[in-house]
Amino acid sequence: MARPRISVFIATSLDGFIATEAGGIEWLSTVEDEHGEDYGYGEFIADVDALVMGRKTYDMVAGFDPWPFEGKRVVVLSHRDLGPAPDGVERYEGPLALLVARLGDEGTRRIYLDGGEAIRQGLAEDMVDDMTLSRVPVMLGKGRPLFGPDVPYGRWQLLGSRHYPTGLVQATYRRLD
Amino acid sequence: MARPRISVFIATSLDGFIATEAGGIEWLSTVEDEHGEDYGYGEFIADVDALVMGRKTYDMVAGFDPWPFEGKRVVVLSHRDLGPAPDGVERYEGPLALLVARLGDEGTRRIYLDGGEAIRQGLAEDMVDDMTLSRVPVMLGKGRPLFGPDVPYGRWQLLGSRHYPTGLVQATYRRLD
Repeated sequence: MARPRISVFIATSLDGFIATEAGGIEWLSTVEDEHGEDYGYGEFIADVDALVMGRKTYDMVAGFDPWPFEGKRVVVLSHRDLGPAPDGVERYEGPLALLVARLGDEGTRRIYLDGGEAIRQGLAEDMVDDMTLSRVPVMLGKGRPLFGPDVPYGRWQLLGSRHYPTGLVQATYRRLD
Repeated sequence: MARPRISVFIATSLDGFIATEAGGIEWLSTVEDEHGEDYGYGEFIADVDALVMGRKTYDMVAGFDPWPFEGKRVVVLSHRDLGPAPDGVERYEGPLALLVARLGDEGTRRIYLDGGEAIRQGLAEDMVDDMTLSRVPVMLGKGRPLFGPDVPYGRWQLLGSRHYPTGLVQATYRRLD
């Protein structure tokens, strides 16, 4: 089977954080749109077969009610037992490349790689095919950064960008081989 | 006199760096445009009366030939003597707010605040009125960041964004009072 396409779809503050130091994402509410604008998320998630995320991200979304990934396969990269988990959630421990190959063998076509740690690992292993980055017009000063020193030098191709009345600027990039 | 407007106009990598660890900006050449696109810089600099920059930025631009700020007043924030300097360059040591007030008294209408250190200081003192941020489609992994932990939490208003065939995405923000 072909290797699944690996996609990132994430929002950061203007200064590149995905959460406050305590993990807070309440600042994202500054771009909550009264008309229900979802910034392309619905279309994106509908095209995804499986999610791969780190443990911190899972522990955060596990508390969401309703569970946001109903009907999707969700793989959590973690060394520790997950405890009771929603249907479709599994734990994985091992090299990311092996997981991706296995998901591909099992029919996964497109993976949503989510959370800072998993995204940085995917970038470090040069496995991310495309990234949709949304910049929220808020400066946090401190927090949990999206990128980090293990991300290698690389050029990306801009596929498009747009901005929204809330001030969110979204750009989509494709890895340049 | 009115306080001068303080503007930022700067490019970063996708991961938020303005230079490599060694201060290199050769990665900016990935968006050098064969048709001479200047990404609005000419229009911006023509509207600026004075530049305020930190010492690292000055030491870098001081080596440019020709001197890029001919005819502009350039104030370098530094504790150390500048040595021989182009016409119009002066050194300043003291609070940024006092400098800005003095420049305003002397007729400056708009200041171009340049370089990571000066920009972070301006943001920390809540003195930046607008920022034009250009994202170059390159990931550096490591380098000199534009923002930092002394930048306070704040919301910004998007004035507009556009992208270019080179993949550069530019957005302009205004401080929300």
